[in-house]
Parts: sequence; structure tokens; C-alpha cells
Amino acid sequence: MSRGTTGKSTLRDVARAAGVDPSTVSRALTPVPDRPVSTDTARRIRREAKRLGFQPNNLARGLRTRRSSTVGLLVPDITNPLMPPLMCGVEEELAEHGYTVLLAATRNDAEIERRSLSTFAARQVDGLIVASAQVEDASVRDVGTLGIPTVLAMRRDARSKLPFVVADEAYGIWLALEHLVELGHTSVLYVSGSIMGSHIADRLAGFEQAVKTLGLDPADCPHVVCDGYGVEHGASAVRDALVQHEFTAVVAGNVLMALGCYDALHEAGLSCPADMSVIGFNDMPMADHVSPPMTAVHTPFHEMGTVAARLLLRHVDQPEAPIESLRLKPRLVVRSSTARPAGSGRR
Amino acid sequence: MSRGTTGKSTLRDVARAAGVDPSTVSRALTPVPDRPVSTDTARRIRREAKRLGFQPNNLARGLRTRRSSTVGLLVPDITNPLMPPLMCGVEEELAEHGYTVLLAATRNDAEIERRSLSTFAARQVDGLIVASAQVEDASVRDVGTLGIPTVLAMRRDARSKLPFVVADEAYGIWLALEHLVELGHTSVLYVSGSIMGSHIADRLAGFEQAVKTLGLDPADCPHVVCDGYGVEHGASAVRDALVQHEFTAVVAGNVLMALGCYDALHEAGLSCPADMSVIGFNDMPMADHVSPPMTAVHTPFHEMGTVAARLLLRHVDQPEAPIESLRLKPRLVVRSSTARPAGSGRR
Repeated sequence: MSRGTTGKSTLRDVARAAGVDPSTVSRALTPVPDRPVSTDTARRIRREAKRLGFQPNNLARGLRTRRSSTVGLLVPDITNPLMPPLMCGVEEELAEHGYTVLLAATRNDAEIERRSLSTFAARQVDGLIVASAQVEDASVRDVGTLGIPTVLAMRRDARSKLPFVVADEAYGIWLALEHLVELGHTSVLYVSGSIMGSHIADRLAGFEQAVKTLGLDPADCPHVVCDGYGVEHGASAVRDALVQHEFTAVVAGNVLMALGCYDALHEAGLSCPADMSVIGFNDMPMADHVSPPMTAVHTPFHEMGTVAARLLLRHVDQPEAPIESLRLKPRLVVRSSTARPAGSGRR
Repeated sequence: MSRGTTGKSTLRDVARAAGVDPSTVSRALTPVPDRPVSTDTARRIRREAKRLGFQPNNLARGLRTRRSSTVGLLVPDITNPLMPPLMCGVEEELAEHGYTVLLAATRNDAEIERRSLSTFAARQVDGLIVASAQVEDASVRDVGTLGIPTVLAMRRDARSKLPFVVADEAYGIWLALEHLVELGHTSVLYVSGSIMGSHIADRLAGFEQAVKTLGLDPADCPHVVCDGYGVEHGASAVRDALVQHEFTAVVAGNVLMALGCYDALHEAGLSCPADMSVIGFNDMPMADHVSPPMTAVHTPFHEMGTVAARLLLRHVDQPEAPIESLRLKPRLVVRSSTARPAGSGRR
């Protein structure tokens, strides 16, 4: 397959029109810090380049400057409702700085992740944002050794030194439990998604810690780890738990699993919130339109994307800058799926 | 900024280890149809390349073969709930064929779209999938003239010859109206999103056609075109319409706008579906958990992404192949937001 050139004019045409050397055009359009082009000249060159419709060949430019102006973004699953806001934050912030996003989804498969990282490296991305890290992630640690600036988002790898931007999961689950304790609950079931990333592990550890801090009896606050994170996983976990445990509230690992709790309660003839309170993690736009409108922990995924992109760009520009990591605070959005436990007097 | 090489071995190392010429290694790893390398030799070269951890430099390879193995994907808005399944279909299909996705979002802004297309062209993408086309889209028509294989998804441009994969919008709205007519409704309000793409225009034209085909009186079936496509736009449209028109059912341009209808009906003291039936377009995973569970037109966006990617790859491989376009059939998912109109006897 062959195809025409993408622009009609060459670097030489622009150089001739601006009355400068081709290398000056090149330096003006891709500034090199130690060999600056005077502002007036650069302006003249850009004007001529625009007038002539000159389009720099980024592939060739990439070879010369060792910059591709692309950043690889690795997500676990595009259709996971958490991902679009995060991806959007990353894309907007990078686009504003002239970077284009190379996207790949790992489907939580370590081999696909390894292959995608290798593809990104071969395409000479200027940096990587990895939102798909497994709890123990050898591929992610290897990335560190490739020398490509990398920021982990949503999930961190405890054994790597890579900077990360994650939610403060322990704080989020503490908010949920504190709300339930204030309503008078003493026995809470936690339905966790399968532990595919540090965020799930951190939240589970946070649950056990919060139970103690809030003075609840750990024996009254069981947890279940599902082998997935969809509506059906939440439903099946609560169905089983209703047989095995006594509890008056459920905290679910995400809104979809919490909807599964709704389903299981409905099947068992229990009403939410009269008989059972439910809180979902990772609030979604539709959570206020479900029945009952769901009390949820809101995690700022768009901001997470923006901050991850900013952190990455700083590392690209200043490779020697100190490594900085961030935990963003979630907040609790109280709607109608939580109430005082049955038999506790007034509702 | 400089950074180490992404692989430790060079093409020469692999050539030496496999006992062949460097150019043979290059041809084995990037097959050229008219100069094939024998299967045995190619296998030996790939084995040595793997053993030595050799990573071909895709940028340099792109210059020689004029292939970048990337495809530009342009979407209007990553957080629009329609986009993730479409993006996922595109990414999965392309990844399977060794292509990586370059992603950009236009935010429905013609200037951002033009700039993104130009960036993609400068990065020498092998093809483009454009899901952001405006109704009259000069940038998209320009793409045709660049000679980059391009497929439009979700939205087509009536004035360009580019192949497209869209939903059969006229069929979808006909399904919705037919269902309402079968229930006994004769007066239906259509709440359309703002006309940012052909899909919205096609659906509106389809509504007017279906009203006639189904023997309804156009005067009893008004429509409103909102200047957005969110929950609040649907709510405000129905609030106004309740004052100006008589109707017993609403079809809304998407699930979020349909949720806005729920809100406006609730405010007006009307019950859905007893007093008013509601149908939303573009079914979403949570539409069966809202109250009442929503009857919705399901559009196969994941399939749309897959098919668009397949169509594109065919055009990349066979530039002379005839242009093929597809309209995918939606289906109606009947839930609990539609019923016989009030006063029509049994429910």
C-alpha cells in the first residue's frame, strides 16, 4: 500500500519562504532548549509553515528528537464504568499539551498487559499511564527499568517505585462505615470485587481497619470476595450471605454489585432501606435514578486522569524531579438506600 | 530528554545469530509481499529475535514500510455512555490484528476535530475511524482527499463517499413507535437530542416517517429538539411540552434524557407508566435498574466498533476494494416504563 504525502509543502519550501536554513525551520517547529531560534524568526517560520500548509512528519521528527509526542494509556477494560471519566481526564490534559494518547486495554490479562507495554515501548511513547496494574505486577516493574517515564493510576504496585495517583480507598470505606454506624448499624457485610488491583486490596484492608476504629465487632462485620465485579456477582454474594450471616447493611465494591444486592434483597422479600441499607462504591451518573436512589462513595476519576497526566508530563520534562504520588479523597453521597436499622426506633 | 534504547539487541545482533543478512531480518519481521523470506528462515530469525530480546524500532520501520500500525480513533466524547462499548469493539478488533489505537476526543467541536485529524495524519496513521462526524463535516471530507483509509462510525456524512457503519435509526424509532401504537397510544412526544450528527437527524426524519406509516396524525405527535443530550435537557423538554401539548407517551433520544422525562413527570405528579409511557434510545446496562425499569431501543455499539475496525482493515489491505457501508439493526427491549394509555380500559 502506498499513499500520498500528508502535507503538500516540504521543510525546504518553508525554509525558502522564510529565508532561513531548513535546520532552523526544524528547530523553530520543534524547539530544542539549548539551540533556541529567535522569537521573530520562529514567528516568521510558523507563519510561512501555516501559509504553505506544511505538516511536519512526526515519524521522522520522532527519530531525530527522540520524542513521539505520544503517551501510552493502558486500561483494564474500556467498558468498566470507572474508566471513561479517567480516560477523559487523561486525554483532555495530554491533548492540551500536544500529546496524543495511544490506547490499549488489558482485559485484566497479565500477558496482554505485557504485550501492550512492549508495543508502546516499541512505538517510542514519551511516557506511560498505567491504570491496569495487577497487585503483583512484574510487567509494570519492568517498565521502570526501560526508563520510560511512567505513572500508575487507580492501582499502584507496592513493590515498585513508580509514582501513582490513586483514590484514598481506606478513607472511602471509612466514610461508608462511619455513615452506617451513625445511623445505628453494628453489623455490616462488605462485598468486595475480585482483587485484581491494589485499590480492591487497599479497600478491604481499610474495611477491617475501620471496623476496629469505629468500635464494631469484627465477628459482626464479615466480608466476601467475589470472583468478578458485575451485578450478578453482588447478587450471588448477598444471596449466600443472607443464609450464613446476620447483618443490617451492605457495602458493595461498586455500584453494579450494589445493584446486584438490590436484586438479591428483592428476591428475599427484603426492602431497602427499611430492612437493609446498601452503599455502593464509585458513584455513577445513574446512581441517583435507580430504585432506591443509591448512597454511594464518589471517587474523582476524571480528576485522577487529569492529575496522572500532569504528573507524567512533569516527569517527561524533568526526568530528575522527585517522585510524587497522590491519594485523592473520595466523598460520600447520601441518597435513599441507607436508613436506621429495622427495630431501632424511629426511621 | 534522552532515554535508553527500548531493546538491548540490534537488528545486526539478530542477523549475526541467525546467520543471515540484516535486510533479511527486516523482511522476516515486517513481511513484504513481493520479497518473501522462506518459512524456515523466518522462523529461525523470529526465534533469535525473541531470544535476544530484540525489539524492532517501529518508528524507523514506519518510515521504511510507510506503515505505522496505528489507527486514529476520533470520538465526540469519551464519557458519553455510547462511546465505551464502541471504543472497546474497535480496540479489541484492531489489537487482534497488531494495530494500536491513537485516541482523540473532539468534544463536538469542529476545530478540535480538524486539529485531531491533522495530528493523526502527521503521525502517519494507517487508517482512521471517525465517530465524531458533524452533519455537514468539511474536515471529514478533507480526510477523504488525504488518501488515508477512513471509516465513519455511528455518524455518516451524506455528502462524502466514505464508508460508514451506523445504526439503522429509522428502524429503531419505528420499533419504539410500533410498540406504543400496539399498546393503544395515538399521541407521542419525541424528545430529540441536539442534532450534532447524522444519527440524530436520521432518527428525527425516521420519527416523522413512522408517524405517517403507522397511521398516526402528525399533529398529535410533536417533537422537540433540545440543545444538549443530558438528564436536564430531557427534563426541561418534557416540563415545557406538558404545558403545550397533549400526549400519553414520550420517546427520548437517549436513556439519560429519558431519565429526565421521569424527573419531569414525577414533579408534575404523573406516574410512569400509568399516566405516561416512556421509551429511551440507546439502552444501557443500568436501564433495567432505574425506577421504573426502562423500555429502551438497544443499539449494538460494541458490534458497531468491531465492524468499523474490520471494514477499515479491509480498506488498508485492499485500497481498491469496493466501498461498503452498513446499517446495524437495533432491537427493542421492553421493560416496565410502557403500558396502555390511561383511560384505555385494562392495563
